[in-house]
Amino acid sequence: MARTTGSHSEITGPRVREAALRLFARHGYAAVSMRQIATEVGVQAGALYNYTPDKQSLLFSLMRGHMDELLAARKALGEEGSPTDRLERFTRFHISFHSERPEAVFISYMELRSLEPENFQIIESLRRDYENALEGILRDGMDSGAFTVADPKIATLAVIAMLTGVNTWYRSAGRLTLEEVEQIYWDMVRRCVS
Amino acid sequence: MARTTGSHSEITGPRVREAALRLFARHGYAAVSMRQIATEVGVQAGALYNYTPDKQSLLFSLMRGHMDELLAARKALGEEGSPTDRLERFTRFHISFHSERPEAVFISYMELRSLEPENFQIIESLRRDYENALEGILRDGMDSGAFTVADPKIATLAVIAMLTGVNTWYRSAGRLTLEEVEQIYWDMVRRCVS
Repeated sequence: MARTTGSHSEITGPRVREAALRLFARHGYAAVSMRQIATEVGVQAGALYNYTPDKQSLLFSLMRGHMDELLAARKALGEEGSPTDRLERFTRFHISFHSERPEAVFISYMELRSLEPENFQIIESLRRDYENALEGILRDGMDSGAFTVADPKIATLAVIAMLTGVNTWYRSAGRLTLEEVEQIYWDMVRRCVS
Repeated sequence: MARTTGSHSEITGPRVREAALRLFARHGYAAVSMRQIATEVGVQAGALYNYTPDKQSLLFSLMRGHMDELLAARKALGEEGSPTDRLERFTRFHISFHSERPEAVFISYMELRSLEPENFQIIESLRRDYENALEGILRDGMDSGAFTVADPKIATLAVIAMLTGVNTWYRSAGRLTLEEVEQIYWDMVRRCVS
């Protein structure tokens, strides 16, 4: 780990990202230096700059990568089935996707404050794309009569907050499997919009 | 603001707390030095130590103060009325209390990672006291037949996450008053447990 080795960007890239993610999640973006990230990866500080122009670019790249993965995986769920079917798929997907990436999720919420304005705008826009996908399902369900929702924009934010909250307490070694957790949340989400 | 003045702890105390809260929320605990806090308050760095032994004590005092206020205010809601009445009071209270203190709420979640183990245990225990108050309402409603909840522990965490999420988007200058927001969330919470 502490050994300083040569940098080959195809190998170093993922290791830089993992190290930055871990250090940002542990200490916060502002407290972590490029030198610390280099030490964690086991390269000279200068070698990091072959991979990323600066710390802000690295943070943005992590947050953008997380949102791109999230949107691609959400899209892969497809649009088949009733609004209820789609809402169930969305609910289970959101829990499983986020529970697999606690550090990326933590950073994506906490370090919005650390993004430069143009980077913040891009991440916010991707986040809205994701929210709009859920809001579309809720609106389709309202149109078909399957859902009763007073304010679909707020219901969207409420459901996402509720589901992301699983990350603050779920441990795979706990009393419930993730499948059981998904089932309990799906039951609550369904009733929330019924 | 930048003027360096003498420290009188009864005046300086609240200003130290406000400055620390603001700086921790903006940059993260690990990135903020006692010297920065002193500069923000307008006192010499040494004068801070009349008020707090170290930065960890200051963080713990902020988080403990937040939880003590939360628990006292929750207790003042009383236990009168049906489980549905009590759940409505809890829901509206949680939203209004948290929306008034966005920085303290942000720090209370984000900087759990920065607490030393014994401080973490104390904050976690206070947090559980708060969760238990809501779980008690849900269990009373289950006993009386007013609520149908598959897992009251998880429903507690889900409701708290949903309600605290208001802080990530609510702005008092937005399209909805806080009273309208409380009404929309209460409607969702009620259905969630019905």
